[in-house]
Amino acid sequence: MAHKHGTGREGIQFANTEDKQEFSKYPTKAGRRSLSRSISQSSTDSYSSAASYTDSSDDETSPRDKTQVNSHGSIDFCVKNIKQAEFGRREIEIAEQDMSALISLRKRAQGEKPLAGAKIVGCTHITAQTAVLIETLVALGAQCRWTACNIYSTQNEVAAALAETGVPVFAWKGESEDDFWWCIDRCVNTEGWQANMILDDGGDLTHWVYKKYPSVFKKVRGIVEESVTGVHRLYQLSKAGRLCVPAMNVNDSVTKQKFDNLYCCRESILDGLKRTTDIMFGGKQVVVCGYGEVGKGCCTALKALGAIVCITEIDPICALQACMDGFRVVKLSEVIRQMDVVITCTGNKNVVTREQLDRMKNGCIVCNMGHSNTEIDVASLRSPELTWERVRSQVDHIIWPDGKRVVLLAEGRLLNLSCSTVPTFVLSITATTQALALIELFNAPEGRYKQDVYLLPKKMDEYVASLHLPNFDAHLTELTDEQAKYMGLNKNGPFKPNYYRY
Amino acid sequence: MAHKHGTGREGIQFANTEDKQEFSKYPTKAGRRSLSRSISQSSTDSYSSAASYTDSSDDETSPRDKTQVNSHGSIDFCVKNIKQAEFGRREIEIAEQDMSALISLRKRAQGEKPLAGAKIVGCTHITAQTAVLIETLVALGAQCRWTACNIYSTQNEVAAALAETGVPVFAWKGESEDDFWWCIDRCVNTEGWQANMILDDGGDLTHWVYKKYPSVFKKVRGIVEESVTGVHRLYQLSKAGRLCVPAMNVNDSVTKQKFDNLYCCRESILDGLKRTTDIMFGGKQVVVCGYGEVGKGCCTALKALGAIVCITEIDPICALQACMDGFRVVKLSEVIRQMDVVITCTGNKNVVTREQLDRMKNGCIVCNMGHSNTEIDVASLRSPELTWERVRSQVDHIIWPDGKRVVLLAEGRLLNLSCSTVPTFVLSITATTQALALIELFNAPEGRYKQDVYLLPKKMDEYVASLHLPNFDAHLTELTDEQAKYMGLNKNGPFKPNYYRY
Amino acid sequence: MAHKHGTGREGIQFANTEDKQEFSKYPTKAGRRSLSRSISQSSTDSYSSAASYTDSSDDETSPRDKTQVNSHGSIDFCVKNIKQAEFGRREIEIAEQDMSALISLRKRAQGEKPLAGAKIVGCTHITAQTAVLIETLVALGAQCRWTACNIYSTQNEVAAALAETGVPVFAWKGESEDDFWWCIDRCVNTEGWQANMILDDGGDLTHWVYKKYPSVFKKVRGIVEESVTGVHRLYQLSKAGRLCVPAMNVNDSVTKQKFDNLYCCRESILDGLKRTTDIMFGGKQVVVCGYGEVGKGCCTALKALGAIVCITEIDPICALQACMDGFRVVKLSEVIRQMDVVITCTGNKNVVTREQLDRMKNGCIVCNMGHSNTEIDVASLRSPELTWERVRSQVDHIIWPDGKRVVLLAEGRLLNLSCSTVPTFVLSITATTQALALIELFNAPEGRYKQDVYLLPKKMDEYVASLHLPNFDAHLTELTDEQAKYMGLNKNGPFKPNYYRY
Amino acid sequence: MAHKHGTGREGIQFANTEDKQEFSKYPTKAGRRSLSRSISQSSTDSYSSAASYTDSSDDETSPRDKTQVNSHGSIDFCVKNIKQAEFGRREIEIAEQDMSALISLRKRAQGEKPLAGAKIVGCTHITAQTAVLIETLVALGAQCRWTACNIYSTQNEVAAALAETGVPVFAWKGESEDDFWWCIDRCVNTEGWQANMILDDGGDLTHWVYKKYPSVFKKVRGIVEESVTGVHRLYQLSKAGRLCVPAMNVNDSVTKQKFDNLYCCRESILDGLKRTTDIMFGGKQVVVCGYGEVGKGCCTALKALGAIVCITEIDPICALQACMDGFRVVKLSEVIRQMDVVITCTGNKNVVTREQLDRMKNGCIVCNMGHSNTEIDVASLRSPELTWERVRSQVDHIIWPDGKRVVLLAEGRLLNLSCSTVPTFVLSITATTQALALIELFNAPEGRYKQDVYLLPKKMDEYVASLHLPNFDAHLTELTDEQAKYMGLNKNGPFKPNYYRY
Repeated sequence: MAHKHGTGREGIQFANTEDKQEFSKYPTKAGRRSLSRSISQSSTDSYSSAASYTDSSDDETSPRDKTQVNSHGSIDFCVKNIKQAEFGRREIEIAEQDMSALISLRKRAQGEKPLAGAKIVGCTHITAQTAVLIETLVALGAQCRWTACNIYSTQNEVAAALAETGVPVFAWKGESEDDFWWCIDRCVNTEGWQANMILDDGGDLTHWVYKKYPSVFKKVRGIVEESVTGVHRLYQLSKAGRLCVPAMNVNDSVTKQKFDNLYCCRESILDGLKRTTDIMFGGKQVVVCGYGEVGKGCCTALKALGAIVCITEIDPICALQACMDGFRVVKLSEVIRQMDVVITCTGNKNVVTREQLDRMKNGCIVCNMGHSNTEIDVASLRSPELTWERVRSQVDHIIWPDGKRVVLLAEGRLLNLSCSTVPTFVLSITATTQALALIELFNAPEGRYKQDVYLLPKKMDEYVASLHLPNFDAHLTELTDEQAKYMGLNKNGPFKPNYYRY
Repeated sequence: MAHKHGTGREGIQFANTEDKQEFSKYPTKAGRRSLSRSISQSSTDSYSSAASYTDSSDDETSPRDKTQVNSHGSIDFCVKNIKQAEFGRREIEIAEQDMSALISLRKRAQGEKPLAGAKIVGCTHITAQTAVLIETLVALGAQCRWTACNIYSTQNEVAAALAETGVPVFAWKGESEDDFWWCIDRCVNTEGWQANMILDDGGDLTHWVYKKYPSVFKKVRGIVEESVTGVHRLYQLSKAGRLCVPAMNVNDSVTKQKFDNLYCCRESILDGLKRTTDIMFGGKQVVVCGYGEVGKGCCTALKALGAIVCITEIDPICALQACMDGFRVVKLSEVIRQMDVVITCTGNKNVVTREQLDRMKNGCIVCNMGHSNTEIDVASLRSPELTWERVRSQVDHIIWPDGKRVVLLAEGRLLNLSCSTVPTFVLSITATTQALALIELFNAPEGRYKQDVYLLPKKMDEYVASLHLPNFDAHLTELTDEQAKYMGLNKNGPFKPNYYRY
Repeated sequence: MAHKHGTGREGIQFANTEDKQEFSKYPTKAGRRSLSRSISQSSTDSYSSAASYTDSSDDETSPRDKTQVNSHGSIDFCVKNIKQAEFGRREIEIAEQDMSALISLRKRAQGEKPLAGAKIVGCTHITAQTAVLIETLVALGAQCRWTACNIYSTQNEVAAALAETGVPVFAWKGESEDDFWWCIDRCVNTEGWQANMILDDGGDLTHWVYKKYPSVFKKVRGIVEESVTGVHRLYQLSKAGRLCVPAMNVNDSVTKQKFDNLYCCRESILDGLKRTTDIMFGGKQVVVCGYGEVGKGCCTALKALGAIVCITEIDPICALQACMDGFRVVKLSEVIRQMDVVITCTGNKNVVTREQLDRMKNGCIVCNMGHSNTEIDVASLRSPELTWERVRSQVDHIIWPDGKRVVLLAEGRLLNLSCSTVPTFVLSITATTQALALIELFNAPEGRYKQDVYLLPKKMDEYVASLHLPNFDAHLTELTDEQAKYMGLNKNGPFKPNYYRY
Repeated sequence: MAHKHGTGREGIQFANTEDKQEFSKYPTKAGRRSLSRSISQSSTDSYSSAASYTDSSDDETSPRDKTQVNSHGSIDFCVKNIKQAEFGRREIEIAEQDMSALISLRKRAQGEKPLAGAKIVGCTHITAQTAVLIETLVALGAQCRWTACNIYSTQNEVAAALAETGVPVFAWKGESEDDFWWCIDRCVNTEGWQANMILDDGGDLTHWVYKKYPSVFKKVRGIVEESVTGVHRLYQLSKAGRLCVPAMNVNDSVTKQKFDNLYCCRESILDGLKRTTDIMFGGKQVVVCGYGEVGKGCCTALKALGAIVCITEIDPICALQACMDGFRVVKLSEVIRQMDVVITCTGNKNVVTREQLDRMKNGCIVCNMGHSNTEIDVASLRSPELTWERVRSQVDHIIWPDGKRVVLLAEGRLLNLSCSTVPTFVLSITATTQALALIELFNAPEGRYKQDVYLLPKKMDEYVASLHLPNFDAHLTELTDEQAKYMGLNKNGPFKPNYYRY
């Protein structure tokens, strides 16, 4: 979810103020990916026995204070409870079923072990899906050490399962800020082992290595970074001439973008609204603010289910697309009184203002699919004349003095982060992209990549897509020699110029 | 959900065996409606504070053994805990927001009190939505006594709220079979009050009166029945010459049918699948068995979200519709190996056989939207060579000896009964239809209705629809005198012949 | 097209004034079917060589004054030019390709010749598709004599081809009123041959037999009537106790209705608008008046192509359906200023008034898909202050004094009659229905049908559908014995109760 | 139509063989735009009185041999018949109604006359829509001389109308090759007038100036080129270091691309198939080869109308999109036997081979929406064992020895070029883009543009879009100062980075 944010870690400060400055100018136009099944557990508690096992754990001792040993005798890890390994294993196995692209990658590349010799230090969400990635990297020959990029998102039982198989994992759900940096440090700073590849999600690991162990970069062949935030930091380093190894921006690959935004939002907008409000879509008047990929996904789904959708836009090109796709383009203020649902997808701030909230009709639902928690001016609702009533988890009724209620979801944070789930298939695409980027950087001949930020080569983007086609029983056509010549293409791709819009 | 069943009350026996016989021949082609938010609480536990209040109640005393008094001093009720009344009131108020048709009916009819003198005994699910109906009947002049038609579906806090305002309610969640009939009896058999109208959902109340208090029918002006099962019983009584009062079949009104089947399934199929499996719909191969209203609703939604849908049908007319609507019509056995999801919507039995289950691919999801739990041959899966693994509530993995897993939802029972919710709006249509049927029967001049089963007059069906149009800010056009004359229509309807197909 | 009219034969009077009176009260709510490729030739002139051959024929002699002989020496026919037979044959062969249901019927029933002994007199449009029907009847054993139900719709070359093979046909394009009745008379009144079955489209043939040769009815086993008008006449005769043989109303069979209205309009609305105006649909604001089957078909297609559609309705049930399907329900006057296209589908009159025409914006397109030419008040536009400019065939610009132009299509007559074509497949369904109705009536045991008007038995309706499924490579599922028993159904149908809404 | 070709001018040779060589390597992956209402007149003959006026003109004298004077006394033009001016004027006026963006541009820019001093020589199709462009340029201050880029596409009456108002036009329908170059020469080579801007469509005018009047480039401030072919030529010149003025590639602007491909094909695929075959779309099995913008447009429309669509692809990314959009991805050979319609949209050659044509079923329709006439191997069908039968204009039946017929449309040339029309709105977008490019190049400060090929600045692309929003009554939202700052955007745009995919 390139456009999504919500680390819940606002309190964490960079040690070096200068650095913080460097990044603080960035409008955090999006955030690091943080969606996974475990994160939205609140909505699925009743379904997941593994999750409830985790939740019911009332061991209050900090993992840092416990001594744990896995069944192989290793103590080089730090997780909540190594005994949860078996439960975690089952979650990983279930995830594997929907991540056949990675399994297939294991098979294809296993003979040659393209990551033999790679020592990867990773900092990502630690979920069943990430575990499938890590175990794929290991199967391809890599040694891995891992930590969490988010203090809340770790699936403890999955971390346990990884630790049990011998991957040094340092992560648990509910870390303190101090824990967070301690875990990263334990990952990087270990006797007799030095990373030569970095896989990062958000840039904190990279940041830590820069600050504490700059010499590590002498051996590092490259950084793979997934999040918008982390990518932004890398570009800033590059601009400042301080990037000392090649870096791969996997966030902007075509496949990832389309799945994270268009396709994923098409599905999650319905799910998020249903789980929170049980709304009937048919005949509802909905305004979607913003007709980018996220907005397009939302509009498609809502229209298909019988909602009457109009959009707001600042960009005339997107507005013209909306017209052609059958949506009225309006100003929010013109329609606000009639709307049953207001959804923001702009990446901007204060798209829904207090004045507009004042004019909404009774029962209007307001939520955000776009970015962080800036789009709806939620702060303006925290005023004495309004009553907040929490009616369900993630659902507040804001009550005006005249009794009018506005239904605010997830307090204006990302709806699909908070109230729906992300299909494993989407995570599979991201994980496969990361694996390929690691292989590419690790094996690239000297000189192919300089100290700069690169996009994944289109051919590898195409390869990621091709690995996922069997899920759909899709059969690709191959160019004949004659056709390839006629088109001026290599039969194995890439098939499109870089600027192709898809 | 006229087509849906699942009372969870298979153990309940009719006292009179003969009678049981009478009904047992009926294939229970559908069942009594039992969907409401509270019923599917398992899927929304984490959202509903009221519900969790109820759930956390660990008072194990039977309500029959407790003495409770409401704040007006009345003891003529029996609920779980009268102290929950305030919570129930809030649930009712929230429901009122989406049931403006009933509120509007209250206002329009309040002056004339069309139910003044009516003494209604009711037996329905007891939920916030039913409460809005009951309080509407009271506002229109009726006296009501109420009991539950299902031993599991009562929202205890709502029952408490009703009891608190003075409606004698006899119902709680988790009644025994004996409790069930005791409650009905307490409703009917009370000193100094005799019902003159019956509102039934499933026919059990009607049955009880027939058995125990047949003299009551001397005063009863009519029965309003909502469920397929109850309607079927009435038609059988009528055929047998034993129906001794007019009865109104509200199950088959156009508006109710379309909402319960086509529109509601269009929304709930997505919801049910997401909440249980987090499936991504895009590109999934789905076979829908049956292209009636339920199947049409499912197909529309799934296709719209990017699934590739084919259907099976026995009826060539429905099959031809499927073709024209863009769905391949296949035999299940031809496609079963390729399918990602199999959904039954036929009302028939053994539509998915063990042999077909054997041939499904790994990970195939199987569920039922149609009728009862007969459509999938679940019994055949309870054999020793197969392993069942419960992975979430309502989700079982059936594991074949070779490791293949089939994902069975709700053990083959109705998916949207078990795993999704019904929008209040749908319930509003049913409740309004019931209210109008009661008004019609109670006020009909002598002789208009004989001892027979009647459909709601089309004009009243149209009136129900018109009461719900303001929810959509829909503006009806009125015929001019000239136009009405040209069409040979009354300006106030009815606008269509009875056989019109909509 | 049950809802469509436009015979262009307003001048034709019934001989008997009394009779005329009888029918004149009828609001001609629909008309006789008159769509076929030949009728909309104006739109396809350039494509059809056969058609242009016909058009270029400048032989001005009346067929009645010519002596023509077919190659078998027969002179028992009257067509424009027997020499066109070969061209007509090719048109028939092309039509056969899309009418495989009739071809299949020929094969299935040919052994037993179910129409052996049938002497059918027919009065329908004479087109390639009708020819396939007639030749099917002959193949099944019938003798046929045929005439045209419309003075403009005959494809001369097809009539020639039929005459050449020995079917006595009396019809040509551009008959006078006198010719029309002369042809009917020649069909009925012939030495040594007396009809025992009547196939009528509009009721004129039936009328003529009633007036002139009532004794014919002694031998007639039944009438099959297709048009709304003809069916209405039959019901009136029946009510008046004057219907002296059984009659079959094939207009109201499910299959025919769905194809003639919903599916056919879904396709023809786009075609009709494109051929006349080259309009781009994307983003156009369209109001559709009426949300019956015709309106539903139009709305579906237009929305799918990116138009923004709202509807007007008088019936709250249809209005509620429109809401749930995602269309705003408005009054025409509220939106008329913003609309790019106005389409009427009501069956009513003066749905679009002069006042509304006055308020339309420049360039607004107005057309009728509903009924006759009454829906738009075209007469009101024929006033001196407005200028009419014919810009294309079927397209008029009405110019207001201030320069505003309204684009009126087909002068308010049926758009898809005038400006688009009807797929052969739709005609195939009607023709198959007619054939089966003839077989049923001719073979029914004495007493099954009385002197009344009957609907096609549902089982035969299902059979018509099943004959068309192979076109879609659709595979029906068969009930098992166990399933049939469970459902209480015969394995061969009928599968639904009569009131089923599909 | 960036992807479309069909100049009908294969015979025309470049004088200089070397040059020809230079371009002949180019696979003419697309062609110059040549769609407009007049071009597809064959399909609309019966509607357009103006067109028929032109057609009926049987004056066989070459315009070059006639002396004509317009009403102002000028003889500086050469058209078919100056007397047709009045008819042409009406066509122009009708076109103006749908080109309000240009009219609006006239109004906005008229005060400042941004093209005052511009002397534009143009070579484009000469149609009513082009006339609106030319007259807009004049209104903005330019002097124009014009000629046709295609020997068949000139609307004679429009050329006359332009000549009558004083624009020197040299063009008529049906020029010989010699006429073609003579007209270009007369445009460029005139006493006392030297062009300082070039507007070209296909590159022939540019070529001619290069060859004959290279000195003209000393004064020329820029070239605006619209076609793929012309743009390709310019890039080649630039690569070769021979481009001596700035050039603007308007073909690749976002707005133009989306409309020419996605949106326009969405509409024209239905239109083209209907006008040629009267096919019913519902239930048809269709395979679309290629899922680029053209394929996406075709698939969307066909699926929406009830066709069952599958696609073929060589590019795994596009294939994955197809999966997510609900289309099965297959190899053509796997499905060819079942298909009712085969549509090519690849830009490649021999996508449909003779072997596949041999395996198609009877009645299968084959057509090309992609590129030139290479996609279907039509040549392979010209073999003695197959019979060709022309059944309508643009429709051939290819008949196999066993009687099987394949329906080939437009002999494999572009379906929407040959058999449907292009909405004026699409042409308006192109024309507006051309006008803005001319203004930009003419007014750019010295040095902004070098001797290179430029894309239209995104801001102007956005401006083109914004000029077309009023057609849809679309209301853009404006950024607040705070929001613009937060996003780091200028309030007036551009709003997206160059690589944004829309």
